[in-house]
Amino acid sequence: MTDFLEPDLAAMDSRKRANLINSVTGYKSANLIGTIAADGGTNLAIFNSVVHIGAAPPLVGFVLRPVGEVPRHTYENILETRYYTINHVHESFVGRAHYTAAKFERGVSEFDICGLTPEFLEGFAAPFVGESRIKLGVEYAESIPIPLNGTILVVGAIRRVIVPADALSEDGSVDLNRVADVCVSGLDTYHSATRIAKFPYARPETVPDFEK
Amino acid sequence: MTDFLEPDLAAMDSRKRANLINSVTGYKSANLIGTIAADGGTNLAIFNSVVHIGAAPPLVGFVLRPVGEVPRHTYENILETRYYTINHVHESFVGRAHYTAAKFERGVSEFDICGLTPEFLEGFAAPFVGESRIKLGVEYAESIPIPLNGTILVVGAIRRVIVPADALSEDGSVDLNRVADVCVSGLDTYHSATRIAKFPYARPETVPDFEK
Repeated sequence: MTDFLEPDLAAMDSRKRANLINSVTGYKSANLIGTIAADGGTNLAIFNSVVHIGAAPPLVGFVLRPVGEVPRHTYENILETRYYTINHVHESFVGRAHYTAAKFERGVSEFDICGLTPEFLEGFAAPFVGESRIKLGVEYAESIPIPLNGTILVVGAIRRVIVPADALSEDGSVDLNRVADVCVSGLDTYHSATRIAKFPYARPETVPDFEK
Repeated sequence: MTDFLEPDLAAMDSRKRANLINSVTGYKSANLIGTIAADGGTNLAIFNSVVHIGAAPPLVGFVLRPVGEVPRHTYENILETRYYTINHVHESFVGRAHYTAAKFERGVSEFDICGLTPEFLEGFAAPFVGESRIKLGVEYAESIPIPLNGTILVVGAIRRVIVPADALSEDGSVDLNRVADVCVSGLDTYHSATRIAKFPYARPETVPDFEK
């Protein structure tokens, strides 16, 4: 085992530490956030930090790096037009999705550069990703600053959920294997997933007698 | 495609909506958070909401459901003793990890009930999970309330990182496939993962010529 203590982490080369710390939270979701500026320009960017905030009401969050450090077109657009989309990444376009992370100039749309299709649905201002089979229409709700490092938790209200009928179970859950969703480790490595187990809701009286 | 609009989501059976909304953020990490009370009692609980906050300094967050709704032993212990551990879940003990979610009474340790080994390392108060091969020692830093639904983003400073030497790459990233890490969809479904691609850092000048 390699045991990095606090001074080891502090002394580590910054790129190496970024790779390490980004790996050790485990597998992360891969989502493309689609936005539109007030002038109509579209933007698309991959995020690994989408997190479930609540189901009643349906809320979703993502962590945004410090504003001002680099241009944040996604965030600027969200503040301007209030609506955005969260679109799953599938195996079939994982490379296109990855390269939306490049820092293009404002006015350049990652939809064009990365060969993904902006899809406009009636009653929703922001573009969805045509290639994505699971997608959320979200209304901006709140920016919650994380003072320790200047990041922001952006929280939105889920106003629309689009899922393929054949991936939707009776109990409301969605089969992500069926749409070939990917997950991410670190900053650059993508994985497919295969279901190994589904368990009942855990209650004290139903816990199996695990061997000690 | 099934297209759930805002009224459909509001009218949905609450358990069904919970399953749907917990699925549509994509694959999530599976982590066991280990804590200790001031009286020495240990606690272990699975969380799917661990999120990367930053690498310099190394910060990690997780979302906690509203305090007061149900007992929150993990959070009470963190506030009492300030240190906690985040431990990856592997295929070999995914069932044991799942059942730590049951609401046991205070004083009952999930380590005992679920047959997992509390591992105390010198210089660190909170218990690690002996069976886990990737684990973080974390110092509590800050509770950030999310007013919209009463959840809390708990942010901590990563003080120690333990990873198997044979899963650690030259560039600092960790091979999660190698330790058979699992990821989660919804509330109850666990998956293994298989690497499909690793891409270079995305820069505008290195974006491939994607077919439009």
